[in-house]
Amino acid sequence: MRLPKAIEKLINSFEQLPGIGPKTAARLTFYLLHTPQAFLDNFGEAIGNLKKNTVECSICHNVSETDPCSVCVDPNRDKRVICVVEQPLDILSIERTNQYRGVYHVLHGVINPLQNVSPEEIKIGELINRVRSNEQILEIILATGSGMEGEATAMYIKKRLEEENEERQNKFKITRMGQGLPVGADLEYADEMTLQRALEGRREY
Amino acid sequence: MRLPKAIEKLINSFEQLPGIGPKTAARLTFYLLHTPQAFLDNFGEAIGNLKKNTVECSICHNVSETDPCSVCVDPNRDKRVICVVEQPLDILSIERTNQYRGVYHVLHGVINPLQNVSPEEIKIGELINRVRSNEQILEIILATGSGMEGEATAMYIKKRLEEENEERQNKFKITRMGQGLPVGADLEYADEMTLQRALEGRREY
Repeated sequence: MRLPKAIEKLINSFEQLPGIGPKTAARLTFYLLHTPQAFLDNFGEAIGNLKKNTVECSICHNVSETDPCSVCVDPNRDKRVICVVEQPLDILSIERTNQYRGVYHVLHGVINPLQNVSPEEIKIGELINRVRSNEQILEIILATGSGMEGEATAMYIKKRLEEENEERQNKFKITRMGQGLPVGADLEYADEMTLQRALEGRREY
Repeated sequence: MRLPKAIEKLINSFEQLPGIGPKTAARLTFYLLHTPQAFLDNFGEAIGNLKKNTVECSICHNVSETDPCSVCVDPNRDKRVICVVEQPLDILSIERTNQYRGVYHVLHGVINPLQNVSPEEIKIGELINRVRSNEQILEIILATGSGMEGEATAMYIKKRLEEENEERQNKFKITRMGQGLPVGADLEYADEMTLQRALEGRREY
């Protein structure tokens, strides 16, 4: 038996997505066969128009409907604090906390020598230029991931920023996201590195 | 911060799919932002055309490009043996074994009183008519799932088929897929019901 081409084509498309294997791709496709055509039209259009209806903010490099993006033009946002993240999705996570009032800078990746991603290929130069042209900067929060590549990228950016900061007599702070036990976690299941960081980062209670 | 509408729309669409929550939906959407427009066009079209380019086979009710489907018109397939499955995806799994040379019947669901799915809403009547109009039938394999609904559906179909079979002096067999330990499984992790079925179904070795 050969699958109808229309079904095979969609299974193949789904398989390209991260975390979706051949079985899930087939399951999703057959599920869609039972949905109304109007939903399929909508879904299909949403995919086709995804990039057509978005631009990259020329200041923070986040994906946006407008350039500059809504965060960069918001007068209530503190432009003196920049949070550096790997990808647009990270901004979403931070915004959900409702705690951060500064602006962002999206690197669009991390330094990864094994995958041939050098510092020039992500938006580090743009960050340095952005800091250089803004005398008001008070703090740069390095919020890349806490894995190997995220750490290496944070380290590299820190070095580049320190050069700039020296010229300004250390006018701005360079900070890194706090590390320790995730909220709700048992010590029993925490790995040694996390416990070590939690100890180092202990605070008066 | 509000997400661009194009992104929000696609996240919402992904969230409708089974097994995809808000976080996975966002991850998939942001992943697609980094793919070429040609892929997005292809993917979007595949979704929009999924149902337009497929029909339901009027004999076995499988999704197909043609009516009757390629299995039902295949002269090498034994039309006297019908394997009854819940959904088109199940046919794919059985075909992968390369062992089955009969034809299929897709029920498009299982009997489920809790979700208001009565026998009339799935293709059971069609199966009975199909068997009734084919004097050659030798075997009906009931290959619905081995969970509660699958068992209940198999049981119900068996009763209906037995009435038909009596009139024919039991000319055809009604069988059910074998139950027991999945290949590669340890006894340690098997549940009692499965072990019980494995014992009942033990064979000379």
